[in-house]
Amino acid sequence: MWGGRFADGPSAIMREINASIPFDKALWRQDIAASKAHVAMLGKAGIVAAEDAGAISAGLDAVAAEYEADGVPEDWDHEDIHMTTEARLAELIGPVAGRLHTARSRNDQVATDFRLWVRDAFAQMDEGLAALQQALVRRAGEHADSIMPGFTHLQTAQPVTLGHHLMAYYEMFRRDRARIADAKERMNECPLGSAALAGTGFPIDREATAQALGFDRPTANSLDAVSDRDFALDFLWCCSATALHLSRLAEELILWASQPFGFIRLPDSLSTGSSIMPQKKNPDAAELVRGHSGRVIGSLTSLMITMKGLPLAYSKDMQDDKPPVFEAASLMGLSIAAMTGMIAGATFNTPRMRAAAELGYATATDLADWLVREGGIPFREAHHITGAAVKLAESRGIALDQLPLADLQAIDARITENVYAALSVDASVAARASYGGTAPEQVRRQVAAARGVLGMEE
Amino acid sequence: MWGGRFADGPSAIMREINASIPFDKALWRQDIAASKAHVAMLGKAGIVAAEDAGAISAGLDAVAAEYEADGVPEDWDHEDIHMTTEARLAELIGPVAGRLHTARSRNDQVATDFRLWVRDAFAQMDEGLAALQQALVRRAGEHADSIMPGFTHLQTAQPVTLGHHLMAYYEMFRRDRARIADAKERMNECPLGSAALAGTGFPIDREATAQALGFDRPTANSLDAVSDRDFALDFLWCCSATALHLSRLAEELILWASQPFGFIRLPDSLSTGSSIMPQKKNPDAAELVRGHSGRVIGSLTSLMITMKGLPLAYSKDMQDDKPPVFEAASLMGLSIAAMTGMIAGATFNTPRMRAAAELGYATATDLADWLVREGGIPFREAHHITGAAVKLAESRGIALDQLPLADLQAIDARITENVYAALSVDASVAARASYGGTAPEQVRRQVAAARGVLGMEE
Amino acid sequence: MWGGRFADGPSAIMREINASIPFDKALWRQDIAASKAHVAMLGKAGIVAAEDAGAISAGLDAVAAEYEADGVPEDWDHEDIHMTTEARLAELIGPVAGRLHTARSRNDQVATDFRLWVRDAFAQMDEGLAALQQALVRRAGEHADSIMPGFTHLQTAQPVTLGHHLMAYYEMFRRDRARIADAKERMNECPLGSAALAGTGFPIDREATAQALGFDRPTANSLDAVSDRDFALDFLWCCSATALHLSRLAEELILWASQPFGFIRLPDSLSTGSSIMPQKKNPDAAELVRGHSGRVIGSLTSLMITMKGLPLAYSKDMQDDKPPVFEAASLMGLSIAAMTGMIAGATFNTPRMRAAAELGYATATDLADWLVREGGIPFREAHHITGAAVKLAESRGIALDQLPLADLQAIDARITENVYAALSVDASVAARASYGGTAPEQVRRQVAAARGVLGMEE
Amino acid sequence: MWGGRFADGPSAIMREINASIPFDKALWRQDIAASKAHVAMLGKAGIVAAEDAGAISAGLDAVAAEYEADGVPEDWDHEDIHMTTEARLAELIGPVAGRLHTARSRNDQVATDFRLWVRDAFAQMDEGLAALQQALVRRAGEHADSIMPGFTHLQTAQPVTLGHHLMAYYEMFRRDRARIADAKERMNECPLGSAALAGTGFPIDREATAQALGFDRPTANSLDAVSDRDFALDFLWCCSATALHLSRLAEELILWASQPFGFIRLPDSLSTGSSIMPQKKNPDAAELVRGHSGRVIGSLTSLMITMKGLPLAYSKDMQDDKPPVFEAASLMGLSIAAMTGMIAGATFNTPRMRAAAELGYATATDLADWLVREGGIPFREAHHITGAAVKLAESRGIALDQLPLADLQAIDARITENVYAALSVDASVAARASYGGTAPEQVRRQVAAARGVLGMEE
Repeated sequence: MWGGRFADGPSAIMREINASIPFDKALWRQDIAASKAHVAMLGKAGIVAAEDAGAISAGLDAVAAEYEADGVPEDWDHEDIHMTTEARLAELIGPVAGRLHTARSRNDQVATDFRLWVRDAFAQMDEGLAALQQALVRRAGEHADSIMPGFTHLQTAQPVTLGHHLMAYYEMFRRDRARIADAKERMNECPLGSAALAGTGFPIDREATAQALGFDRPTANSLDAVSDRDFALDFLWCCSATALHLSRLAEELILWASQPFGFIRLPDSLSTGSSIMPQKKNPDAAELVRGHSGRVIGSLTSLMITMKGLPLAYSKDMQDDKPPVFEAASLMGLSIAAMTGMIAGATFNTPRMRAAAELGYATATDLADWLVREGGIPFREAHHITGAAVKLAESRGIALDQLPLADLQAIDARITENVYAALSVDASVAARASYGGTAPEQVRRQVAAARGVLGMEE
Repeated sequence: MWGGRFADGPSAIMREINASIPFDKALWRQDIAASKAHVAMLGKAGIVAAEDAGAISAGLDAVAAEYEADGVPEDWDHEDIHMTTEARLAELIGPVAGRLHTARSRNDQVATDFRLWVRDAFAQMDEGLAALQQALVRRAGEHADSIMPGFTHLQTAQPVTLGHHLMAYYEMFRRDRARIADAKERMNECPLGSAALAGTGFPIDREATAQALGFDRPTANSLDAVSDRDFALDFLWCCSATALHLSRLAEELILWASQPFGFIRLPDSLSTGSSIMPQKKNPDAAELVRGHSGRVIGSLTSLMITMKGLPLAYSKDMQDDKPPVFEAASLMGLSIAAMTGMIAGATFNTPRMRAAAELGYATATDLADWLVREGGIPFREAHHITGAAVKLAESRGIALDQLPLADLQAIDARITENVYAALSVDASVAARASYGGTAPEQVRRQVAAARGVLGMEE
Repeated sequence: MWGGRFADGPSAIMREINASIPFDKALWRQDIAASKAHVAMLGKAGIVAAEDAGAISAGLDAVAAEYEADGVPEDWDHEDIHMTTEARLAELIGPVAGRLHTARSRNDQVATDFRLWVRDAFAQMDEGLAALQQALVRRAGEHADSIMPGFTHLQTAQPVTLGHHLMAYYEMFRRDRARIADAKERMNECPLGSAALAGTGFPIDREATAQALGFDRPTANSLDAVSDRDFALDFLWCCSATALHLSRLAEELILWASQPFGFIRLPDSLSTGSSIMPQKKNPDAAELVRGHSGRVIGSLTSLMITMKGLPLAYSKDMQDDKPPVFEAASLMGLSIAAMTGMIAGATFNTPRMRAAAELGYATATDLADWLVREGGIPFREAHHITGAAVKLAESRGIALDQLPLADLQAIDARITENVYAALSVDASVAARASYGGTAPEQVRRQVAAARGVLGMEE
Repeated sequence: MWGGRFADGPSAIMREINASIPFDKALWRQDIAASKAHVAMLGKAGIVAAEDAGAISAGLDAVAAEYEADGVPEDWDHEDIHMTTEARLAELIGPVAGRLHTARSRNDQVATDFRLWVRDAFAQMDEGLAALQQALVRRAGEHADSIMPGFTHLQTAQPVTLGHHLMAYYEMFRRDRARIADAKERMNECPLGSAALAGTGFPIDREATAQALGFDRPTANSLDAVSDRDFALDFLWCCSATALHLSRLAEELILWASQPFGFIRLPDSLSTGSSIMPQKKNPDAAELVRGHSGRVIGSLTSLMITMKGLPLAYSKDMQDDKPPVFEAASLMGLSIAAMTGMIAGATFNTPRMRAAAELGYATATDLADWLVREGGIPFREAHHITGAAVKLAESRGIALDQLPLADLQAIDARITENVYAALSVDASVAARASYGGTAPEQVRRQVAAARGVLGMEE
């Protein structure tokens, strides 16, 4: 009945399904830190003798040094990182190691370790996003005047500046960082001392351990503290929201790098070539960033489903909180770094972008606006006149601003010579100087503001 | 080829797939408000003549009054709420209606309307959660001393108080409300004036419209402003996180209402009975709350997938932002209200809860703790002694504190008379007085603090 | 406490959260049919008197006629379609109506009705996909020789034929239809007679009702029959898989319709124009098809989460099975029809497609293959030679087949005059005549086979 | 800018984001098999010299032997399993290794390898499910007469037999296996020979390679063949559907193992105990099975999102197809095995189950049915009478069949002595002998049929 890898029957199955050490060994630094904070408090509060506390603390340092040097041993008999460390500690310092577990339980221990890990992961993601923002802002500053087609429905709509386009992503990542900051603050409460589920009768000092581990305060309810995985879910949502933004930017890079667009040349280091087609350069990194959004969002879905309908307090289902978080954090680290590299190293083919903007009658709106603004013509009528002008230009295969004045006036007599000032792509973008608009002056203002926020010195 | 409902061929398909009026009519209040703010600004800035602005504003009021009285007409020829309103406005006030659309586009208009709607939905959800918290806090105050079994792995682990258990959910909803507050602040920027995607050449005052609509500031990048749906995604994430908490509480109510548990009697108004089995009471409302978590999370998934990989700026795919948001908001409103009603109206069978806590040797940990604390016995040895005591009691079918002292001392001579003070469920919960622990005094402290936060007067 | 729509308190909440009539009225035809089959069996088996059975059957016809004429009344007091119909039946025929409910319960009734509905929805989706396949095959036949660039990584890789490209989607929808056929067969078992959960003591004939309703057999386990929603989940998975294919085709249509590509002109009826930019045509229908994939997949996610962890037998959570199924079915109907319209009505700009294929040295692989095949040169060396040739052509800005023979021979002396026959895009596609390859002859063969399968006469 | 693990900048990022060898080395057996089939065909077709083909084939065997002995070396310079194998082959047999890649590309190679892997995974899952079904059937046979409460809404509704309950899961897994069989057949087409995307000019024999690898036929369209991941998605859907069933059964085991239910004792080997609470046994394996459903469904979501909106043909995003499939397959293997172990090894507390069924007036429906059947009383009236009887019994705290006849007749004079035969739980289950009902004879019939299907000899 139990063939293959489970030849030993249920006990072999249990060893494998139950063991979390293959993944939770990633928590070793947090586990050591939390244990040290706990034992220091136990010693100070007189719950454990000072010398025992000292011995345990030194022993934990020794274990940490071993892990640092040789990695964490993956022995399924010591199911998880907590038992692995405890067992090694006992080997090193003897039975006194057992006192470490006074007034705590694995339930609050794992909740504390994992929070510490997620807090670090938030910080790293934020740092990565800051670097990506800097790359965007730098390139936006270079291209505040570079003109490209602005698309809606992927149809050429109006000319915009490349700097403006890049700054749109600056805004998205700004929101992502704000979301991270909020979540990080919300989760910064320490579960340690909640014990198995009900708190403890030992006179522990939860403020002290919370402070030692950089938490703002201890959690207020022990049942909640061991059952809560909101911090992990918030992390996965922050990853997902950011991954969506990255997927959009990646999609654009892939489009722009295609031969029909030809707007961009991605850096060689983040593309792959073909020995046979030297002209071909696959945007692999951009595609992987786009593809990874699936796995990141899948990680969020995964943990939401796992948590759905679980009664209080700790259930073993919650062991499935870590693989999705670890995977999402790793994918996000790679994706953000790859995107930063692509933005920093891309070569924009600005002449081709400009040419694409000049096609497609992208300044038709400007003609209509001119008619409204200068001619006092109601909007709907202005639209009608513009349509006629575009149709005429299209029939001759020329740009709007190549139509002779006489022809324009034949369509509507109120059109005058100075309409031409509105019809070039340069005039079009310069005109859109409303706050947040695409005009180079606006873009430069936003870039300057962003440089200030990001602390980018001149 | 085009049978059935599409007998008229592609144009019939297009009418149906393209029309958003069946759902976006829900935005009518927001659409009127945003239009009024816009036209007031246009008038003040001199972009539209003051009298025209006045006429438009009055016309919008008239349209609003019609909608209020008769509902929004659902005519697919006017594809969406914006065109429906514009068309009616033109009927009422004539061609001057056309000036309303100066310096804006449907892209920034819909982004603004939808943000306003979502902001209200955040506020309503927050209000509902506050009521739910109050119900929890009230019942927790009543039951600060009521003893029940605390479960881990759904196994009886240690006694806790019902008040403590209910306050765990207070904490969850506290985080949910904090998450809502963060998201609401993050989204409170006004897209109006971003126009189609590039901003506008008209000398608009975006600060003025932002302020008039209660936004903190205008959005900083017009391309981002019309392409961004983070606010809707953040809303759906806030709904999902809350729905997960509700699903856990609902699961517990369903368990507790089952005959084997028998901990609770749900209010008749939120259950259904059976004419044939008067003793049977189905916890329908709790089951629906639990089930709805699926649809709420599905809504989040839906919009994430829709947004994945969309290039800038507006794409029509984004029309699929509203149905999931509207559905999730409606389900959350119902679920929160139903849960509030169940918590407020439930009858707890506290004798049965206490009896369940007394079974199962739930104070075994207390014996072990007593041995460590009073006897100075190392943790692992204390565990061993406790195991022996429990085994003995189990073999006789009696509770731990019913074992005679002599028998306990036969197991370990260091046990003394005053161990009994630690072995009752009352002693057990009273002892766990660490911060956040289950002791009645701790629960009362948390309840008092919560009453303060919620503004519940005595 | 209960403001707004719940002013009446818990009972108002319960009315609203509990009522399924707003959506399950869609099941009325199925409900009538199942009741008629049930009562006919009861009559035949002598469980209900023949004349009573006749009266009930006639009454059900009368109710159905009313629904057909006036729609189903949505009265929340009659919670669902079953009670709505029962109540109306009792009004029409008096107390004998009560006998209809003999030997059945709402649990098996709703399971039966919903299966019947889903079975119809499968059939409709299959029919829609057949029409879409026909459109693809027709266009593929027209364009078996039209050359376009084949992309990998959205980079021009090798020339392919448009017919071949369209037939790739034929294959996808072929798999979708096979998946539907499998699921439809798997679900075709009749739950009627499973009663509440345990079966019934009445001597019913389940084979008879199963057969009357077109099922292959009755379900084999009554507990499973009322708890199972696999048929709904399978339906949502079939929708999701198909929606993914549609999202890919929609993405291509949107790309191809963009100005930089310019490969296609979508039918006016399925696009929207702009009065101001007559040259602009937004691919709205394609974008909505792509966007809808999010909502369809969200529906699957939704029901999976709702079903997760539900104990047997029926739980009220399962009432949340219908909204996702109804929504997905409706979105799929629209999406498939819209896609069929776009494929049938699109105008392909074949000269532009061909020109794009001729750029980008898309026949470099053909040169390498020629070197291997004709020159017996190992693959890696052939790649190296090809790379040199492409580099040379690129440096001169000409196509590969415009390089003089002398220049090619300077790179490798083994190259001969007849290499040119391999370097044109026509030669390239004609050469790839392996089974399933892009050669026109292959495409025509696949088109012919597909016409046979689809029953498309010449 | 590039701190930490990316200190070497973009090239370090690219190495890491691009490398699939850490996970796709799992495909080595499939990769060797597909290469051997390919080269055998090349040799037979004369595309590669017979001796070269032989050398390559022998070389592949040598590489396979190394992998078998020492594992696959994970060198990121050889990005994936295909290049790792090719590089090693070249080391072993020299430049002739290069001929292996004639008439194929990495795109069709990876599609073929992965299909082979998924086909095996389907087979393994099916085998695991067959074993689980056998365990269920065996236990159902033992407990065809054991009575337990049947629940709806987790409320005691009617008595059922444990065998009937277990057979409900047999039915679910039967559907799962049918779904697997369908998907496995649908995917059994061979992509090999589709080359990069367009097929090949070499005179390959795709029927031969398809047959050699156990495929039913070659794929019919090369563009589709390299772009299609339906087989992986179908696999993930099959996993998800099965995981949902497992999550329901796991939920029940956890409920049943709780002290308030006390229906079951799970095997020690699949539970964890507590040194301190010997009476406590945590159903860890059941909880992990339930929790894993989240990760399995998350894997499906992940790949659906990754595939959404990808244009043809191969995009690098599709490299993200493997991690979710590998993870889901591994989790399913463990979950099915663990569940099989729990079902096979559980001890059912049948007296307690029976006692629970006897409580709660679970035979009230039987009284009503008796009144209809024996007394010819209309359903609604029978319900009313039953309600009165239950209320009376409840008020006295006794079971229905403990009410004296006189009391029953006081409620309704038509009740006679032989009603008692209908009121015991044994009578109740025995009566429900309709096809698929809970009567022991029915259960035994279904068990016998299942034993036949599963080939379980007596």
